[in-house]
Amino acid sequence: MSDEILDEYDALIESEVRRYFSRAREEATRYHPFMGRVYENLEGYVLRKGRRLATTSALLVYTGFKGEMDAYARTLGLALELYRHAILVHDDLVDRDEERRGGRAFHRLFDLGEGFGEAAAIFAGNMLYAMALEALEDIPKSEELRRLFARAYREVNESQVLDAYFEHVEPSVEEWYAMASRRAPSLFRLTLLAGAALAEAGKEEREHLEKAGAEIGYAFDIQDDIIGTFATREQYGREPGRDVLRGKKPLHIALAMKLAEGEEREELRRILASRSAGEAEVERVKELVRSCGALDEAKRIARQHAARAKAEIEKTSLSGEVKEVFASFIDYVAESLEWYA
Amino acid sequence: MSDEILDEYDALIESEVRRYFSRAREEATRYHPFMGRVYENLEGYVLRKGRRLATTSALLVYTGFKGEMDAYARTLGLALELYRHAILVHDDLVDRDEERRGGRAFHRLFDLGEGFGEAAAIFAGNMLYAMALEALEDIPKSEELRRLFARAYREVNESQVLDAYFEHVEPSVEEWYAMASRRAPSLFRLTLLAGAALAEAGKEEREHLEKAGAEIGYAFDIQDDIIGTFATREQYGREPGRDVLRGKKPLHIALAMKLAEGEEREELRRILASRSAGEAEVERVKELVRSCGALDEAKRIARQHAARAKAEIEKTSLSGEVKEVFASFIDYVAESLEWYA
Repeated sequence: MSDEILDEYDALIESEVRRYFSRAREEATRYHPFMGRVYENLEGYVLRKGRRLATTSALLVYTGFKGEMDAYARTLGLALELYRHAILVHDDLVDRDEERRGGRAFHRLFDLGEGFGEAAAIFAGNMLYAMALEALEDIPKSEELRRLFARAYREVNESQVLDAYFEHVEPSVEEWYAMASRRAPSLFRLTLLAGAALAEAGKEEREHLEKAGAEIGYAFDIQDDIIGTFATREQYGREPGRDVLRGKKPLHIALAMKLAEGEEREELRRILASRSAGEAEVERVKELVRSCGALDEAKRIARQHAARAKAEIEKTSLSGEVKEVFASFIDYVAESLEWYA
Repeated sequence: MSDEILDEYDALIESEVRRYFSRAREEATRYHPFMGRVYENLEGYVLRKGRRLATTSALLVYTGFKGEMDAYARTLGLALELYRHAILVHDDLVDRDEERRGGRAFHRLFDLGEGFGEAAAIFAGNMLYAMALEALEDIPKSEELRRLFARAYREVNESQVLDAYFEHVEPSVEEWYAMASRRAPSLFRLTLLAGAALAEAGKEEREHLEKAGAEIGYAFDIQDDIIGTFATREQYGREPGRDVLRGKKPLHIALAMKLAEGEEREELRRILASRSAGEAEVERVKELVRSCGALDEAKRIARQHAARAKAEIEKTSLSGEVKEVFASFIDYVAESLEWYA
């Protein structure tokens, strides 16, 4: 049941994206043929297959209050999906990722050298964010939505700066939480609150949804980082362990720096600081994170966030059906933690 | 007289920026001490000395209609100045410029390696744009302003993609115009129309201002590119000719490719395509652009845009004093073309 709804919403979001780009691509081509290609690449990038859980969350909240979908909600879905990809384009570039969901990262889509790819990704990411804001123009009384979009964008970019900074220092678990609070939690706060704002939900409902969004975000974020280090290449769809090689500090690493002792802690610190680590070092980091209990602790914390997320969703007056869908995809995140060890 | 007003508006914009950052810096530091440093660097970057003609143009239009400055206009000034610097941060990064107005480019402000500088510049640029939008929240009925900000941001980023693309091809004068139409012309259309929107100016006034903005933008853009190639190091404040070395295609180059003949045209093409050109080649490019008449033609076109800009300003019902200020800084752009040869 829940899978059917998720499929349906993914398809709906994709059809909005297609509709938007069919006009935008044409205008861009008239401006300059090369701009037409840029828009084509943007459309292809946004439309790559994959669950669109963040945007779907907004639509679920809307229909969970209003009982049905409408044109404004679809437009909000479009805006959120453009927003999310604006962030991904820059994220891939900064992390020098080569792939994203089965295709090349945006900065790798042009064969004009690295400098051009970088320029294209920076400016096209900006264009996507501007497009998201322009999409909101089709929604009357969108002031609150705009406030949410601007705040979330500032937040996620702040967290990205900190995330990059943490490659150079040793953040505590508390610092990790400060950084992460403005990453996935910020995205899900945005999507849940945007759905609620459009549905004109009451203050109390929004408070529960704001909390639920943050909790869903933490659960996703911690899971995502665990996958990045501990998944196999088959599970991950690209090379895992690149986070370790870059000296990233996900929660399981911040926890390991706290839980590991003596020699093991020093070894972990050494590997993460060296920029010349290879496959053997990645395996060693995984062992160390496991043996000190940090991996299990990170999973326990992710599950705790998932449980809290469900409890907050339960407190809203969303329809039973929508609550079920939320519960089922939150459960999925919590259960999937088992697959990575 | 005109200089006094420009000084006064620069000071006013700077005081708004300072007021904004004193609170924002504090909040950022509470979030994470390092974020406080990022905001400090952003404030320093925005506050570097220099004429703030784009933002000042918005304030001039506002007071030219309303007769006086007020808190909303000051807030608009803040938003525009944050907006403009959001663009500059990314622009410096992509062009790998080391300096900006007497200080380091934003991506060079941190001593954590090039990768971190790049990440910081991308994300901090995004933060500045989000801050600009958040600043607009203090202005009631800001829907039109938001539309203008989103459209201008999309436009300038499109033009930046094309500008980067032109490093790899040979754009015609028409293609140069397509690219440039969304760069400085887009910025001045934004600032003039934003001032007009806030002052609730009529449709006809706005049409003249939209045209004036575009014309001012072209005049500035062409002049700016001429400076970038033909100014001395003393005039430019940093190394000139870097545009040639990067294979940039400003108007004077697009014109030269049209006006130069036979051997000279081939030579120009060869130097611009080679990525290993040095000082001697920059000098040779300058000679070739001069000798075929492209430099004079670019100056003539810039002056034509300046004249049209003044004519459009004249058609508005802005106060005589404000018209005079516009005329005087537009004249300044046109006259300063003489200094570069």
